[in-house]
Amino acid sequence: MASLVEAEQLDARDPLASRRELFVGSDDPHVTAYLDGNSLGRPLRASAARLASFASDAWGSRLIRGWDEEWFDLPLTLGDRIGTVTLGAAAGQVAVGDSTTVLLYKLIRAAVDARPGRTEIVVDTDNFPTDRYLVEGIAAERGLELRWIESDTRGGVSPAELEAVVGTKTALVLLSHVAYRSGFLADVPALTAIAHDSGALVLWDVCHSVASVPIELDDWGVDIAVGCTYKYLNGGPGSPAFVYVRRELQDQLSQPIQGWMGHAAPFDMGPGYSPAPGMRRFLSGTPSIVGMQALRDMVDLIAEVGMAAIRAKSETLTRFAVEAVDDWPASWAVELATPREAERRGSHVTIEHPAFKQITAELWRRGVIPDFRAPHGMRLGLSPLSTSHVELWNGLEAVREQLVRL
Amino acid sequence: MASLVEAEQLDARDPLASRRELFVGSDDPHVTAYLDGNSLGRPLRASAARLASFASDAWGSRLIRGWDEEWFDLPLTLGDRIGTVTLGAAAGQVAVGDSTTVLLYKLIRAAVDARPGRTEIVVDTDNFPTDRYLVEGIAAERGLELRWIESDTRGGVSPAELEAVVGTKTALVLLSHVAYRSGFLADVPALTAIAHDSGALVLWDVCHSVASVPIELDDWGVDIAVGCTYKYLNGGPGSPAFVYVRRELQDQLSQPIQGWMGHAAPFDMGPGYSPAPGMRRFLSGTPSIVGMQALRDMVDLIAEVGMAAIRAKSETLTRFAVEAVDDWPASWAVELATPREAERRGSHVTIEHPAFKQITAELWRRGVIPDFRAPHGMRLGLSPLSTSHVELWNGLEAVREQLVRL
Repeated sequence: MASLVEAEQLDARDPLASRRELFVGSDDPHVTAYLDGNSLGRPLRASAARLASFASDAWGSRLIRGWDEEWFDLPLTLGDRIGTVTLGAAAGQVAVGDSTTVLLYKLIRAAVDARPGRTEIVVDTDNFPTDRYLVEGIAAERGLELRWIESDTRGGVSPAELEAVVGTKTALVLLSHVAYRSGFLADVPALTAIAHDSGALVLWDVCHSVASVPIELDDWGVDIAVGCTYKYLNGGPGSPAFVYVRRELQDQLSQPIQGWMGHAAPFDMGPGYSPAPGMRRFLSGTPSIVGMQALRDMVDLIAEVGMAAIRAKSETLTRFAVEAVDDWPASWAVELATPREAERRGSHVTIEHPAFKQITAELWRRGVIPDFRAPHGMRLGLSPLSTSHVELWNGLEAVREQLVRL
Repeated sequence: MASLVEAEQLDARDPLASRRELFVGSDDPHVTAYLDGNSLGRPLRASAARLASFASDAWGSRLIRGWDEEWFDLPLTLGDRIGTVTLGAAAGQVAVGDSTTVLLYKLIRAAVDARPGRTEIVVDTDNFPTDRYLVEGIAAERGLELRWIESDTRGGVSPAELEAVVGTKTALVLLSHVAYRSGFLADVPALTAIAHDSGALVLWDVCHSVASVPIELDDWGVDIAVGCTYKYLNGGPGSPAFVYVRRELQDQLSQPIQGWMGHAAPFDMGPGYSPAPGMRRFLSGTPSIVGMQALRDMVDLIAEVGMAAIRAKSETLTRFAVEAVDDWPASWAVELATPREAERRGSHVTIEHPAFKQITAELWRRGVIPDFRAPHGMRLGLSPLSTSHVELWNGLEAVREQLVRL
């Protein structure tokens, strides 16, 4: 049986346990359990300090000179840092900027244009909404067709399912590495190879995996990836997303939002758009420098502890959550909507029950904060560096208490 | 003759003079004159404090609940506030989010699609680079033609010039309210009426005017406007842009980047994109909440002092700059590249000389900070609330000293 004692023992053995105190609010008596770091990571204390000094020092004293001194290159230097530390990406293949949605739009457009004559985009029905809405619009504007994989909402896309739909018409395969709902961890190398065998490009949405699951984009032969920095990279609400484009592919891709920051010579301000070589061409407007500040600290922390340790802790946390839920009476009919094997899931666990919408609202008022995904899912997001096993236990106990009252 | 004494007298009579101390760095001994607030406004001290507390309080303690409590609506509530205080826009017509470039892309696409059968976009050759690069790309992807107005780089687009190119083929007219190079202040009501007479929509780029020049979008009958918040709205490097869409037009426009934040029911996460009614449909991905913090303080300050007082100070500053430059020996051949009449320009003054590239670099090292625009332009940006006449005088003296040495 999962228990508080077991949670305490797991924390005592956790080599990352002491890192939790680095986060703002880890000692907040009003938040018993924060189980939504997969939607919005907690701020590091270092980031709170960095944001304060950013305004008074970098912005306030360097003023416009900051662009020459650091900010103009920050989308690429910070991109390289994210790439090296979390994506298995050699330098020169990652840029930070725009929202996930906008970066996905630009890269999906670029990818389908790079496969002229191919008329289909493959996507799954349980991909994140923004991914689905985007390809709908792009298919309509580019005269393409969508091939939907009807994916299991408690699992994800298997190699066999992808095999069944890709072919000579496929321009692009768009999939998520970790499913936002089920937490299913896709087999990126296998699925990428299948897409490539058909001659298609593949774009991985790594929003729900990056910085919680080890990623090796270079080794896996991925073409393009887009990911989010406000979840496990703790960049703050609405912090900018990043895009990875395999080096050999970069100069073959043209994205449609031709802005000055993607120009080969932005400060000439001359006539005619000419895309910069390399990753800069995927930028458009002025990047959100303020929004890039907080995540720098998280990347530093991840570099220090390493992705292997983070993944190990993530597995311990999700395993403990599943074990605790398994102990609840079968008569409650709470169902696990996440793969049962730790190696087949990311860092969140989803459980389902018809009362979870109302229970989540009540829990939030009590400082126990999972999130709710329609129609019946409660997601327990277990951000490895900021979540303890005791915190998770306390959160699960609060859920259990609500279920008891039904 | 312009003089330090005159500058001191102007400051003594300036009803806004005391506001300058509200800005970080106004007492910085290393920055003699900051004359680039039109590229990047100084931070308010209140914003430095707000950014610090944002991480520890709102983000760190409300965590994901912040989205329900405030952030989900912030693009619209802050948009309304910008609209009321600086744009002459009634509530429900302004949204904040994305970069200027991305918002321009979305709205240009939406606008040309709303005028089917019309095949031309009118734009001027001295519009800001991003505007020009964008329409190039959009024209190519939508099979449209660009009609270029060859605008005077020391002036801007006149009603007669626009009359000459608009017609039954014109889908959209894209112009800047204040020209980024010359500072020319366009006659928005007259130009808008000309565009409308031809049946075209008009999109005003107000990046270089908003919060320094009074704007009355509702009264002027403007269809769409996009503007920047890191110049005279002091939002910090890369803070998000805003978009205004006239109420009656909103539900006729569909923008192409269909993301979850623009969906009618974003948290249903259901199949199929259905745009939200009103301004929310112009959002795409998760908006930069961190990036919206600083500009809130500036909007509050502008509301307190009023746009009329800001414009009055702006005119005094630009008039003093022109007067001082006029006093320089004619043999130096420094040329004014901005309209001579204060009512025909915004809040920056551009002067030209072949040595200004090297002089600007030297001035930056000395803490005198104008900016340089190729090929020979030095822009003196005079942000009304954070710039004093003495500061401007000191900056001009530093320029003069460099010119003397040539």
